[in-house]
This record gives sequence, structure tokens and C-alpha cells, in this order.
Amino acid sequence: MPINRTASATLDVPPGLAGVVVTATRLGDVRGLEGFYHYRQYSAVDLAHTRSFEDVWHLMIHGELPDAAQLSAFTAHTTKLRSLPAGVREALPAVAAASGRSGPLAGLRTALSLLGAAKGFRPVYDIDADQRRDDTIVSAAAVPTLLTALHRLGQGLEPIEPREDLPYAANYLYMLTGSEPDADRARAIEQYLISTIDHGFNASTFTARVITSTGADVAAALVGAVGALSGPLHGGAPSRALDTLDAIGTRDRIDPWIRERVLAGDRIMGFGHPVYRTEDPRSRMLRGIAERFGGPQVDFATEVEQHVEAILAELKPGRELHTNVEFYAGVVMELCGLPREMFTPTFAAARVVGWSANILEQAEDPKIIRPVARYVGPEPPIAVPVP
Amino acid sequence: MPINRTASATLDVPPGLAGVVVTATRLGDVRGLEGFYHYRQYSAVDLAHTRSFEDVWHLMIHGELPDAAQLSAFTAHTTKLRSLPAGVREALPAVAAASGRSGPLAGLRTALSLLGAAKGFRPVYDIDADQRRDDTIVSAAAVPTLLTALHRLGQGLEPIEPREDLPYAANYLYMLTGSEPDADRARAIEQYLISTIDHGFNASTFTARVITSTGADVAAALVGAVGALSGPLHGGAPSRALDTLDAIGTRDRIDPWIRERVLAGDRIMGFGHPVYRTEDPRSRMLRGIAERFGGPQVDFATEVEQHVEAILAELKPGRELHTNVEFYAGVVMELCGLPREMFTPTFAAARVVGWSANILEQAEDPKIIRPVARYVGPEPPIAVPVP
Repeated sequence: MPINRTASATLDVPPGLAGVVVTATRLGDVRGLEGFYHYRQYSAVDLAHTRSFEDVWHLMIHGELPDAAQLSAFTAHTTKLRSLPAGVREALPAVAAASGRSGPLAGLRTALSLLGAAKGFRPVYDIDADQRRDDTIVSAAAVPTLLTALHRLGQGLEPIEPREDLPYAANYLYMLTGSEPDADRARAIEQYLISTIDHGFNASTFTARVITSTGADVAAALVGAVGALSGPLHGGAPSRALDTLDAIGTRDRIDPWIRERVLAGDRIMGFGHPVYRTEDPRSRMLRGIAERFGGPQVDFATEVEQHVEAILAELKPGRELHTNVEFYAGVVMELCGLPREMFTPTFAAARVVGWSANILEQAEDPKIIRPVARYVGPEPPIAVPVP
Repeated sequence: MPINRTASATLDVPPGLAGVVVTATRLGDVRGLEGFYHYRQYSAVDLAHTRSFEDVWHLMIHGELPDAAQLSAFTAHTTKLRSLPAGVREALPAVAAASGRSGPLAGLRTALSLLGAAKGFRPVYDIDADQRRDDTIVSAAAVPTLLTALHRLGQGLEPIEPREDLPYAANYLYMLTGSEPDADRARAIEQYLISTIDHGFNASTFTARVITSTGADVAAALVGAVGALSGPLHGGAPSRALDTLDAIGTRDRIDPWIRERVLAGDRIMGFGHPVYRTEDPRSRMLRGIAERFGGPQVDFATEVEQHVEAILAELKPGRELHTNVEFYAGVVMELCGLPREMFTPTFAAARVVGWSANILEQAEDPKIIRPVARYVGPEPPIAVPVP
């Protein structure tokens, strides 16, 4: 039933479309009250515990987990696409030089735009579902290569060519550092990546779907999504939670530091989520990964978590403020040797698969997303003054 | 009042959010039944008849038409920003080489992304309103320079440096061809550009606002908007209407050609609009501009228009199918010497001002736009199969 349009200055929908159902999806959902989220019909956390990134990538864009033959074909296809076309590779130093000031996601935005054009991506409604899927694979397979090349160029280092014999996550770490990561770190990052592929209908996913709905090409949709993710209210900064840990510094300072901030009305970075009213299931999983490594930083992080949760429960009763994905994501990424400025870009290296699946689903329904705005200015027409 | 969420498979809002009011705006509106649209409190067509592009640009982003001193300062500021930073200029040959296959808007997407990064744009909520406005001016002032440079590079020609002594539209034509346009052509394109700066709440404008709502920088929002505009269901192709004129060819073929297409269920390019139920006011204005030039092509276009309207009224009674902005926009742009592949990019050179104003308005209200999707797949959790 269409929403009634009235002359009232109030809107017909809640600010920010909060809670407004704008589409149907088979890709997954978040159950905030249960602390549960899923990709298609599977628990995302179960997938992260038992499957590879490539398995879940296949699940998201093909609709099912691959069997051995499918996985082998998918891996062969995606690993070949890690190498960049010459035109893109040669332009990266200029992109890196420009994007240093706006951050690595600005560089990824430019590079993915360039890649899509170099590959000759065409409007999604002009091509078939297989070609669309392939355009998303071309893009997603290249994201780790682009991110690590831009990062290294920004550091004055040569980019490292991708390896085809390593899984997605291990190859990402390899291209970042030039050394093959140990199995524990590669698996930890792989599990982080799996757990952040998708998460309900976030702003970047919605952006990708709006752009796709116009019939634009896959690169247009992904570039818009990267742009939305770069917004602090969305992509956030997993490094901020670590900054909090650094600022607290020692155990004895946890209580006074946190109380002072909470009483001043400051948000404690890494705590609270707009959807979860219970523990964030990603946080629980990532804490488990951090505990596999152990050590003083992990001990300190869990101690801070316990104190903050207790203080927030005391000072903000009923608010159910728990660690969100940022808190232990930062701990895990730091344990695995990722520099802090690469935390949000690493998130993008996972979420690009979620965007891909959403682009493909949206393109099945060729209908433009075009809401309206209510004009609330002075009533026109007012005669244009003579200059 | 929040929309009620039910377990029904139907959505709570119409497909594509059609008719759903998602925000309040003081920037303008479209009255489809009256054939009227306005920028702020002024008729857009009146502005195109009586004002310069710079006047209306100032109106959109500063909220008022400039007086003589304001216009002088605004012109001095914007003309200086037509020149590109060295890092961007040097990267353009690589961007042009890559974007040939996906079209000029793909090149603009990349170049605007690069420009924002090179200028060090920061998240919109981290900067004040003046800085945000300036970021939009930096971007919009450069769009004609970027578009013409990419076009010329694609043709194997050297880009032409902008001139500061020409108005926005005249300088655009100058950079495209290397010759100063005559006054009639410069004014015709200026009027076209003014008339397409904004038009209610279209998909690219909505995209720019969603991205801005995350706190991302101005370039992220503009790049997303360019992506949405590149979708055939949105930016369309003013050149398609000319292709129709070419395909008809001669007067005697108008009737049979059109009847055959309409009876086959084909859409006639350049006719019909989702909002206007009367003549598109942009079409009326652009026909007037075309008639100032006159000549056989204009006579043929008006004859085709009359025949098509009569045939559509006969074969599709009650549908109110009239020429839309594409039809005479194509005629005017061709009369002014613009190559057909630059028609939609020229549209972008106007619409960037509308996006700018929408970004600035959205950034006044730091609230993320984040709707939800209804999951309609198999009920989870289903146990993840062992690989």
C-alpha cells in the first residue's frame, strides 16, 4: 500500500528510513534480540568456524556452498583475477600519491572505478546474470591486490604480486608484508573476513542496490558502496577501540578512565550497536580468536571489556551496551600484524562479497529505486528578481 | 510513525520506494500534474530564461541568488578552481585509456574520486558548512575540465586548459573544441545546463544523500551519484532520441515508423516521463531554444513530435505521453556541436550542482540513512554441511 502523502511537514517514514522495509532478500538477516545473524540459511558464525572464505563467497554469489569440484573451479577462476590489468597497475602510483590525504578507502574507490572501466563493465541490465556475477568476481578478487598495492606505494614500497597458491586471506597478508603468514594468523584473518561479509541491510549495501537499480554497471555500485563505507557513521574505525585501550594504558586506570568518559557523556568506542540488544555474535567469535593467541594485550582487552560492561550496566542501566565488532576485530587484526590504517580497508575486502551478492540480487528486478522528498521551503513560484 | 513490520512476504513500502517521502528539502520540487518544477522558491524555467549558470549555482548552494558583489566573488572563486591539481592532470591519460570501454561517465567517476582525494577531502561531519560547500565547489568547478580532457584524450587530442574569462557553459564548449563558441550556442547550452541542475528527488540525488548520511566525504557522495546517473534507467541517453530521428529519416516515414514501433509495444525514446502527466516544462523550454536556431533538423524534430503525440494519443489514449527532456535536449546539444557521446556527461556537468546542494542539505542532519530488508529465504539456522 503506498504511503499517504500529506501536506504535513512531518515525514511519512522515520528519519533515516529506520526500520522501514525497502526490499525482500534471500541473502541473510540480523536478529538483534537473539544476537544472531545469518548468510542465506546458515549461521554466519558457524560458517566462519567451519568454512573457507572462498566457500562463503561462493555461497553468497552462487546461492549455495560449493562441492569439491565447484570449489576447485571457483578457486582457479578467482585466483587468476587477483592480478591487475596493466592499465590499472600502471595508474596505481598516481592514485596512491593522491589518496594519501583522504585515506586508503578513497584510493580503493578510485582504483575500483578504474578497474571496472578498464575491464569494460557494461550496464547490469544489458548483460546476463553470469556476466554480472563475473563482473563482481573481477572486482572482489582484485580488492586485496589494490588495497595492498596502494598501501605499499604509500609507504614508498613496491607492490607485491599476488600468489595464486594461497587462499584469499593468506594472499592478502602476503601481499601486505611480502612474507607468507603463519597458518594461525592466516586463519584468524580469514575468520574475521568471513564474519564481516554481510550484516543485514547496512548503508553501503543499500547504496550499492540503489545504484544498481538504475542499471549502472557493477563498478558504479561498488564504488558508491566503498564511498558509503568510508563514512565514519558506517565503516567506523576498528582502530578507535585500540586507541581506547592504548589511552587507558594500565589496569588500574580502567575504572577511572571509563567512568570519567561515561559521566562526560562520551561514547566508548567499541561498545554498543544500533541493532544488537545482546552480545554482538561477531564480538564473541573474535574474542575466541584473540584468546587462541593469548598474551598480555588480549588479557588486557578482556579485562577492559568486563569493566566497561559492568560500568555501563551501572551507569546506563537497561541500555545493554556490549562490545561490538570493532572491539575484538581491532585486537585480532593487530595480533595478525595489520597496521591500524588498514583495519577499515580490510573490512572492505570482506564486505565487497556482501555488496556483490546484493548487486546480483538487485539486478534481478529491473526497477529503479526513486523515493521522493517533501518540499518545505517558501511556496513557489516567487518571481525571479531582475539581476 | 514507524512503519509496521509484519512477517508477510509483501513489503511495507511500494517497490522502488515510489512515492515514499524520505526527507524534507528546501531545494526544490516537481509538480507533475502542473508541468512545473522549481529550484528553491523560483521557477527553474524562469531562472533559465533570465539568469546565468553561476547565479543559479550560487542560489542552490548558498540559498539565495547573488547580488553583484557576491556574483563577482563567486565567479572569481569558481573560475580559479577550473584548473586541475598536477597529480590529477597527470593521471588523466591513464583514466581516459581505461574508461573508453565503459564510457565517459566511468571516466568522470574515477577522476572525481581522484580529485577529492588529491584535495584531501575529509568526512563531512568532521568539517564545517563552509568547508563542505567549498569541497562541492572544488568538485563541480572541475567537472567540465575533467569531462573535456577525458574526451579529448580519448580522441588522441591534447586537453585544452580552462579559461577564467569565460562563463561556465562557454568555457565548457571552448575546452571541448578549442574554439570560443558563438554567443547563441554558449547561451543555449547554459540554458540547458540551468534547466537540468536539479529535478526533484532522483536516484543519483538520493544516492548522494545516502552516502553523505554516513559522514563520508563530498567526493564519495558525488562519485556514487555519477555512478547512479550512468544507469540507463536514470541518466538515459539524450542521444537515443536523435537516433530515433535518424532512423525515421524522412517526413513520409514518420507515421509508419512510429505506428509500427508503438504497435510492437516498443517505447519511443524521448517520449513519456514517470512524473509529468503534461508537457515536460524542460522540453517546452528546449524546443524554444531549438527554434531560435531553426533549420531543417529543428523543423523535422517538431514535425516528429507532433506526429508522435497524435499517434500516441490515438493508440494509447489517456496515457499523456509527451516529449521529455531528452528529445529537445538532444536537438539543442547537436545544434551546439556537442558530440553524442557527450550528451549524458553534459547532463552531469549541470546535475553536479544539484547533487552539491543536496549533499550540503543532508550534511546538516547527521543521521545515517539505513533502511532494512525483509529476509524471505529458507528459515535459518540450517546446520552448515561438513565440506
